[in-house]
Amino acid sequence: MKPTVGFVGLGLMGRHMARNVLKAGFPLVVHNRSRPAVDELVAKGAAAAWSPQEVAERATVVITMLPNSPDVRLVAAGENGLFAGASAGHIIIDSSTISPVVTAELAGQAAALGIAWLDAPVSGGPTGAQAGTLSIMVGGPADALEKARPILKAMGKTITHIGVKPGSGQIAKACNQVVVALYLQAIAEALLLAKGAGADPAKVYQAIRGGAAQSWAMDNHAPRMLSGNHAPGFKAWMHLKDLRIALETAQQANLPLPGTAQVVQLYTSLLAAGHGEENTSALIAALENLAGIKL
Amino acid sequence: MKPTVGFVGLGLMGRHMARNVLKAGFPLVVHNRSRPAVDELVAKGAAAAWSPQEVAERATVVITMLPNSPDVRLVAAGENGLFAGASAGHIIIDSSTISPVVTAELAGQAAALGIAWLDAPVSGGPTGAQAGTLSIMVGGPADALEKARPILKAMGKTITHIGVKPGSGQIAKACNQVVVALYLQAIAEALLLAKGAGADPAKVYQAIRGGAAQSWAMDNHAPRMLSGNHAPGFKAWMHLKDLRIALETAQQANLPLPGTAQVVQLYTSLLAAGHGEENTSALIAALENLAGIKL
Amino acid sequence: MKPTVGFVGLGLMGRHMARNVLKAGFPLVVHNRSRPAVDELVAKGAAAAWSPQEVAERATVVITMLPNSPDVRLVAAGENGLFAGASAGHIIIDSSTISPVVTAELAGQAAALGIAWLDAPVSGGPTGAQAGTLSIMVGGPADALEKARPILKAMGKTITHIGVKPGSGQIAKACNQVVVALYLQAIAEALLLAKGAGADPAKVYQAIRGGAAQSWAMDNHAPRMLSGNHAPGFKAWMHLKDLRIALETAQQANLPLPGTAQVVQLYTSLLAAGHGEENTSALIAALENLAGIKL
Amino acid sequence: MKPTVGFVGLGLMGRHMARNVLKAGFPLVVHNRSRPAVDELVAKGAAAAWSPQEVAERATVVITMLPNSPDVRLVAAGENGLFAGASAGHIIIDSSTISPVVTAELAGQAAALGIAWLDAPVSGGPTGAQAGTLSIMVGGPADALEKARPILKAMGKTITHIGVKPGSGQIAKACNQVVVALYLQAIAEALLLAKGAGADPAKVYQAIRGGAAQSWAMDNHAPRMLSGNHAPGFKAWMHLKDLRIALETAQQANLPLPGTAQVVQLYTSLLAAGHGEENTSALIAALENLAGIKL
Repeated sequence: MKPTVGFVGLGLMGRHMARNVLKAGFPLVVHNRSRPAVDELVAKGAAAAWSPQEVAERATVVITMLPNSPDVRLVAAGENGLFAGASAGHIIIDSSTISPVVTAELAGQAAALGIAWLDAPVSGGPTGAQAGTLSIMVGGPADALEKARPILKAMGKTITHIGVKPGSGQIAKACNQVVVALYLQAIAEALLLAKGAGADPAKVYQAIRGGAAQSWAMDNHAPRMLSGNHAPGFKAWMHLKDLRIALETAQQANLPLPGTAQVVQLYTSLLAAGHGEENTSALIAALENLAGIKL
Repeated sequence: MKPTVGFVGLGLMGRHMARNVLKAGFPLVVHNRSRPAVDELVAKGAAAAWSPQEVAERATVVITMLPNSPDVRLVAAGENGLFAGASAGHIIIDSSTISPVVTAELAGQAAALGIAWLDAPVSGGPTGAQAGTLSIMVGGPADALEKARPILKAMGKTITHIGVKPGSGQIAKACNQVVVALYLQAIAEALLLAKGAGADPAKVYQAIRGGAAQSWAMDNHAPRMLSGNHAPGFKAWMHLKDLRIALETAQQANLPLPGTAQVVQLYTSLLAAGHGEENTSALIAALENLAGIKL
Repeated sequence: MKPTVGFVGLGLMGRHMARNVLKAGFPLVVHNRSRPAVDELVAKGAAAAWSPQEVAERATVVITMLPNSPDVRLVAAGENGLFAGASAGHIIIDSSTISPVVTAELAGQAAALGIAWLDAPVSGGPTGAQAGTLSIMVGGPADALEKARPILKAMGKTITHIGVKPGSGQIAKACNQVVVALYLQAIAEALLLAKGAGADPAKVYQAIRGGAAQSWAMDNHAPRMLSGNHAPGFKAWMHLKDLRIALETAQQANLPLPGTAQVVQLYTSLLAAGHGEENTSALIAALENLAGIKL
Repeated sequence: MKPTVGFVGLGLMGRHMARNVLKAGFPLVVHNRSRPAVDELVAKGAAAAWSPQEVAERATVVITMLPNSPDVRLVAAGENGLFAGASAGHIIIDSSTISPVVTAELAGQAAALGIAWLDAPVSGGPTGAQAGTLSIMVGGPADALEKARPILKAMGKTITHIGVKPGSGQIAKACNQVVVALYLQAIAEALLLAKGAGADPAKVYQAIRGGAAQSWAMDNHAPRMLSGNHAPGFKAWMHLKDLRIALETAQQANLPLPGTAQVVQLYTSLLAAGHGEENTSALIAALENLAGIKL
């Protein structure tokens, strides 16, 4: 018989992920700060809980999908939080993208209570969340991962165990976000160079997209940059948040990341100009502002 | 009947490209500063010429594949150069990666002589040159391109006419090199972040390569960075040369490219440390030096 | 009659500052985590207290000089801290260099207890601390500053009231550290350029130091860089700590500081190479490593 | 008896420098592309020449003060240029700020004709030129410098012989310009940080200007940045030109200068926004644009 699964955080990503868990046949108990997302899932067969604590009392595996470190800390270790309701042997799967340091801290508290903590951030965006095709990067104990795997399978296509060290999944996610940010800048600078030098950026895109410049990011973001369509999707401020986690992680390791530091400045300029709620492809706007020209 | 084709510059790329033209049935006249590459092609049926001028006298279409702007200027406009031998109606196809500004200057001189100049730099490396699968980015008059297309088809798979403005192909190539350089830095910083933060870089690579971080560069360079195998392939100093062309092109357009400027500094450090003759994946070594750790 | 002054944190800076307060005729009560510095001041006439709380019970004005935000938070708001011992009307002067955000938080807690909080970070280093010639940048209520001024005068030459907003002094200090860091990089890059291009860096220094390149930093750090004498003085890791405060402050204001972000990466590389305990002039070593040459 | 001095290039700087030579009692022959500056000096006692060649025929020491490398090359080595008029034993003093590489090339050509070439760029701006208080950085043969010294003394206060290697003076000037550019960015980022974080930038300037942040640049440019008065003085596009010389010089030495590369991007953005003709203190505008706020 399938274990009852708890889910806290039914936002842009979480609502799709929770629904996929439900679809896969797991009894589901959900909690969320705002009501409509809860109602939606209850209508499909989930039960509602009034607090994270209650979720943890009613489910042996709990998934969290929250904006940032303080939210996860509050939901897990705060008043009426998961730690107050969970018992030894339970598993918490945190799919939020947060600091590996905070992850290690919370995983340590969980371990002291006999609870296994898996950090399991995802990539793939709302589209992947809806389709159940997320990439899931997992840190934490292997046995807990094996128990949780059928549930993760309901949400994602690729599940990679990065390491047993708490926060390993978060580190992988931070690496992913670093890569994507510099890809975005690469594409944006190239298109702007084409324009500035007097060539047609769309033609240049067509000419280079199939060769050494090929990437998923090129295929997805270059057309957006060319058309100026920056409807989200994954938002600029979220990416910046993730990049700051990457830089803080690097800082604690005394690790210089000059390219990342530099693109963080560009993103900061983008947010200062009011583009935070747009898709990450809006990064081109920060360069356009710097250059005084438009694609 | 197929026109006689001339070829000047039988280096790492040029020898393969010339052979493919020959294979496609075009009579071929070749010239090169050093002898062995000429002999090799003569053995396969090409004729040898003693100067670029002689090549231009014996062929109506001439392809050049040379290291940098001064070489092309010398071969085209120098003593015993192409301009001295070519007649009105002839076509020069410069597949070298050089400055769009020098291209425009030489194209102007050619036009004054009734000669069509196509700038047609390629991407795909020695492997693509050998297989005849290069991507070719073309700038210059459309009618000359149409006449030259069957010859270009012998060398490349994708032929894109970027624009009639002389140097348009060079601009596209510069854009391509900008993209690839920042991709390389993206991949290198991510792998180093994984290592520095205590996760296994190879696991992180496996976890992220299929998602938003997917790219040809990731697939080709991350394994090299992880294994430390930087046998060329496309060499670091060549990439730096191309990036400097990109920055100079941007400079003339008063265009800031902060990411490109920054990766040029990293490449400069790489060359200062003696890695210039290695594959571009060696860029990781510049970051390792900065960080004081190894992957 | 002069009020009793408390002093918590008798480190490299604090011991000199406390002694100057004592010399100026203020009765002094001191506390420090390690004993010898306390004994030294007691030998000169100060009284020892066993906790920050006791300091606050025995003095109406308390000065703190501590390494970083968590230390100040602990001393002020922790168990047996200043807030536990201070009464309404008392003044706390925090001369530590810490986050303006933490300052605002602690100033708010102090205000709720009727205690005035002045943030009063200093510049001038151990030399200035000893000579009583520090520059003191003050944030907080003007009336508290007027009461505290005679005490501040005992420690510093220039006292500037930046603003009544809590943290204003910390902001000024962060600005100061940003300036100095980029000055250091300016000087280091110039000397390295001289060397790399084949001119004598010492001659270049002599030629430019009196003109538009003139600065206190040039006069003090160029000779150190040229001679390789990086005995502290103000240590590299301390400067990096301060620069991170500056970047975090900027981040909260959504403010890009591209030069600062970049020199932070250079400093990070410097620390990664083991130069953290050296004088800030050691920054040249990070550039030398990048360049593969020595001055 | 004093030797006749020639002067080519009577621009913003050159007219003052030439007048000071005249004032010091040297017979003066001048040439300039536009007439009014010539007339002005003729009115004070100078003779006019119709070409650089004629200047060189009538003077044993010739000073040039021109915008950039191509101008100097033309005036020295072009048709009716200095080399056509000068004789063995003559001295050319180039006070322009140009590439050390072009300097070495021209010095070599001069040497072949028995002419001594001194590169002698200056710092101090129009104010220093007028007052005769320039700093002059000299590269080239010591004996020629000794002969020229009385003339240089008429124009400048500090004369430093950087080295006998041609271009040594230009290298020192490039170093100077690197220092000043990063100082400017330092000051601009600090003032903007003050503003963004909610402190009064003018107060912060007052608080920090006397300490470790002290510099001539701070004293001169911070008030301009605070008041928005960017009337030239030394113009932004000229500084950018000089910084590009510095970067090219570094590039030829395979020398990374990450801070310089970065401030060049900022200056490029400044020029793209149309501030090229303003004083260098306008650099603050590029950061304001990036930040979306004004001082």
